[in-house]
Amino acid sequence: MSEPTQSSGWSFENEAHDAAFAVAYLHRVCFTRDVLDTANPALRNVLQADGGRLARVLVFVDDGVACAWPDLKDGIIAYARSHADQMTLVDAPIQITGGEACKNDWQVFERVARAITGAAICRRSYVVVIGGGAVLDAVGFAAATAHRGVRLVRLPTTTLAQADSGVGVKNGINAFGRKNLLGTFSPPWAVINDEAFPSTLSERDWRCGLAEAVKVALLKSESFFEQIVAARPRLRNRDEAAMRPLVRRSALLHMRHIADGGDPFELNEARPLDFGHWSAHKLEQMTGFRLKHGEAVAIGIALDCVYSAMTGLLEWSDVKRICDCLTGLGFELVHAALQESETLLAGLEEFREHLGGGLTITLLNAIGKPLEVHEIDHAVMIEAASRLRRSARVIF
Amino acid sequence: MSEPTQSSGWSFENEAHDAAFAVAYLHRVCFTRDVLDTANPALRNVLQADGGRLARVLVFVDDGVACAWPDLKDGIIAYARSHADQMTLVDAPIQITGGEACKNDWQVFERVARAITGAAICRRSYVVVIGGGAVLDAVGFAAATAHRGVRLVRLPTTTLAQADSGVGVKNGINAFGRKNLLGTFSPPWAVINDEAFPSTLSERDWRCGLAEAVKVALLKSESFFEQIVAARPRLRNRDEAAMRPLVRRSALLHMRHIADGGDPFELNEARPLDFGHWSAHKLEQMTGFRLKHGEAVAIGIALDCVYSAMTGLLEWSDVKRICDCLTGLGFELVHAALQESETLLAGLEEFREHLGGGLTITLLNAIGKPLEVHEIDHAVMIEAASRLRRSARVIF
Repeated sequence: MSEPTQSSGWSFENEAHDAAFAVAYLHRVCFTRDVLDTANPALRNVLQADGGRLARVLVFVDDGVACAWPDLKDGIIAYARSHADQMTLVDAPIQITGGEACKNDWQVFERVARAITGAAICRRSYVVVIGGGAVLDAVGFAAATAHRGVRLVRLPTTTLAQADSGVGVKNGINAFGRKNLLGTFSPPWAVINDEAFPSTLSERDWRCGLAEAVKVALLKSESFFEQIVAARPRLRNRDEAAMRPLVRRSALLHMRHIADGGDPFELNEARPLDFGHWSAHKLEQMTGFRLKHGEAVAIGIALDCVYSAMTGLLEWSDVKRICDCLTGLGFELVHAALQESETLLAGLEEFREHLGGGLTITLLNAIGKPLEVHEIDHAVMIEAASRLRRSARVIF
Repeated sequence: MSEPTQSSGWSFENEAHDAAFAVAYLHRVCFTRDVLDTANPALRNVLQADGGRLARVLVFVDDGVACAWPDLKDGIIAYARSHADQMTLVDAPIQITGGEACKNDWQVFERVARAITGAAICRRSYVVVIGGGAVLDAVGFAAATAHRGVRLVRLPTTTLAQADSGVGVKNGINAFGRKNLLGTFSPPWAVINDEAFPSTLSERDWRCGLAEAVKVALLKSESFFEQIVAARPRLRNRDEAAMRPLVRRSALLHMRHIADGGDPFELNEARPLDFGHWSAHKLEQMTGFRLKHGEAVAIGIALDCVYSAMTGLLEWSDVKRICDCLTGLGFELVHAALQESETLLAGLEEFREHLGGGLTITLLNAIGKPLEVHEIDHAVMIEAASRLRRSARVIF
């Protein structure tokens, strides 16, 4: 704690004290398969019994996941029974509406918080949530605020959540017409990526995780980008074995960024992991979420790459490699919403406002080499959107 | 980031990764007088202009404070105008119902969050809140979750908030019939204690801050306890000059505990600053908040001191010193609710559950020497309550 300082040059005798402190976190991610097989120790390993007590666990399940895996709830109960020396379910698994709907409905948050309270889940008990990114976000916000934060174990079930948001430290719900308006930075107690879950996703949802994998490759690692490009033919045939290492590498790069990037709670202006996201968030909103997040991110990446090239930052040959990669993975980079340039560009200001401070947009200097800019030339961005719209094939 | 580890002894090839990281905070407390005097730099000093932009500020005011200080809102506007080179008010000051009511009403939280959103307050803009502990808590929770946390400058106005919670790192609202059920650990951007505010408090409210000062003295510093004892005659005559150094020392001890105590976000079981609070929270609830927090804390301290002595931890002579100090300050240590021993003792389990894990109660070994116990003998505690009830004068 510093010595008190007196303000000088003023007639007031103010006494200011400051004290620096740090809060330490451990971020844990486990990759596994068949997490609810009673012989699989991954889940029991993270449910620490506390002071001789059994780990008390309340489970929330995305209804889309419960529907695709009809034995899931029984599996949870059987797993808990089989590990009764370590854990106890305080209630039957609770089903939550999946998809963005659960983040728009305030009552979902309230229902989860009420269930946590009613089941006497405390700061040393566990909420386990199994689902896609939206359910992880909504349940995560309730878990982060009930009793000022109970332990949260995330089991992301989509490629997108497994590769990206599920291994992040954020949660949130939508409010007052704004995406993620209410939320916190709260590192989960643990994340368990079960590679079996994505197998039941629709073609579109399965593909979506690849957009975030491409994003993190462009920011962090050209070799990862090449790995994705090489896997393209197999991915087009929905080869699950080809997907798994990509999701894993994306998740680890994401995790490493949080731990080593120097700003896990985004206290600075930069938000490098949100590459391509200023327009992606806006495109989702403009299309009433008919564009899925991964699909919007693919377009957003392409748009900011074209802009990067138009402003002399990125080689056109790299733009071509990136767009070829995305279209080769099955993403459509042309969308009518790109024409509504004024509405689209409003996304820049909304992006700035949510983060605060001056505008900071991540662009690309080369594959694996991001850079930050603090100004976007609107006319050039409109032209970039127009070029992209005139088809990914003819812009180069 | 650690190397991945393979679980052994199981047939599953799980791959676990972990990454440690820390988040750094700076806790700032400034002691001043007449914070809204345009010549006082305390407030402008903490409102950092960001990247050349003016600091954007939205102010919330406890309606009790606005009533006691009719010029307050005009003063805020005049201060901002006088410092227009540094700050801009994005809206007129917004009045919030004071007292516990604002924590019980979900709509207050929503109203504050909506106002923050509507005024385009971002993560680098400022919410300034002027009020008692309850208003600081409710507005603080909204500020901590809107955009996942905007900057919060607290101006506590009561002796209690200035000495204790206002310099802490917590916020919260009541939900599902539980006190502080929803909240976060979120260090404020800065705290400014204006010593002029407490002058308009009622006799009872003015006294309340002393209970927390005695509490922190008993936990941290016998010399501070002696300082309070010595000031007693002047405090009984409401000598503001006698109060000020006590509030200041209490606030600094509290701040130092957060920064140097090793567990600012209460991730461990111990919650030493909550000495005397398990019963205080319960007594407040049992009396429908007719007992004020500080009054309940005084009783709670006395109760746990009597229990400490009965279990051989504390000298009876110290219990006498402590109870004499509290009664000398005007606190009543006898209350009918102490008779309802079963209801009262339920507070132990509620205290444990909110914190989680095993029961951890702070008791006293001597003045300035706390210790933690993990078991409370209910029969002895009932007898302690009974002794206290039979009057503070005859128990020794």
